[in-house]
Amino acid sequence: MDVYVLFSGGKDSSLSAVILKKLGYNPNLITINFGVIPSYKLAEETAKILGFKHKIITLDRKIVEKAADMVVEHKYPSPAIQYIHKTVLEILADEYDLLADGTRRDDKVPKLSYSEVQSLEMRKNIQYITPLMGFGYKTLRHLANEFFILEEIKSGTKLSSDYEAEIRHILKERGINPEKYFPEHKQTRVVGLKKKI
Amino acid sequence: MDVYVLFSGGKDSSLSAVILKKLGYNPNLITINFGVIPSYKLAEETAKILGFKHKIITLDRKIVEKAADMVVEHKYPSPAIQYIHKTVLEILADEYDLLADGTRRDDKVPKLSYSEVQSLEMRKNIQYITPLMGFGYKTLRHLANEFFILEEIKSGTKLSSDYEAEIRHILKERGINPEKYFPEHKQTRVVGLKKKI
Repeated sequence: MDVYVLFSGGKDSSLSAVILKKLGYNPNLITINFGVIPSYKLAEETAKILGFKHKIITLDRKIVEKAADMVVEHKYPSPAIQYIHKTVLEILADEYDLLADGTRRDDKVPKLSYSEVQSLEMRKNIQYITPLMGFGYKTLRHLANEFFILEEIKSGTKLSSDYEAEIRHILKERGINPEKYFPEHKQTRVVGLKKKI
Repeated sequence: MDVYVLFSGGKDSSLSAVILKKLGYNPNLITINFGVIPSYKLAEETAKILGFKHKIITLDRKIVEKAADMVVEHKYPSPAIQYIHKTVLEILADEYDLLADGTRRDDKVPKLSYSEVQSLEMRKNIQYITPLMGFGYKTLRHLANEFFILEEIKSGTKLSSDYEAEIRHILKERGINPEKYFPEHKQTRVVGLKKKI
């Protein structure tokens, strides 16, 4: 059974896809892009390493433009990231019956509340699966290290395939320094497999 | 790595153990009993079918006596079931570093809130894993049917291995009809495997 997994190339969305595979699903990875910069390149590489089908879906640039507005308005990125994530899920739910992502128990943003999840599933008649929701950060660190060879990258130094990369680019285009809003943080991407998945 | 899974013999705790196995853990199933009646018998059978190690842990009968009090006081079983579940987790967390159970996304009771989970993990320095928390009831129905041969039993007709069986028995001992408080519901147990786990 096909399941469509929102995929950034990071350890969480990778692990999410691995769990679904192990449960008998056929994971199809989807990386969202808004036509600003080709920030999907790293996700493409990781999808190859995992051996899962992968496609890039390009959505309306207006979505990420609005997110950039929100970053400036709120002076921090969380509401903007949440907005993009929810908008993307709404759009994909019209297309796919089984949608999944790498949302973790300890994540704050992006994350749907329980009633938002219920609403999405009922309105769109889909199943929305978040395989990592029952796992804390310690457990996930253990699991990621069991399955993957990981590489840490400083955010903003390389193109990462999450929503942040394109928002940063738009802010720069507008003459705004993205460092002002995005706190420096480490991102971890999957560069190899330690065991068969 | 050993993980200890609270186990009733039902499809949820069984699926929880299966997911952990597939992620590379070694599941040890634990069925709790309070010395009232041997309600662990069905869980024992299912553990054999799954091929996982299983043990019965007998805890103080006072816990389930208090739960029976609560059922009568509140006139419905949810607070009592929640009380037993939390008490059991607190006790097991002193013994085991990795604890898991079959709590599902759509469950209301028993379920720990996010801050209760955080508190349990931090105070006891453990990892508490709820592998089904990211899955809705439709997805879980699909997965249980993929892995297991299931049998439906009407609650109260056979000894089920959840907390309800012993509470019911205590109520009867006290001359109270448990049907007054426990709404009739179907319970599903695992009686065979459809594929290798």
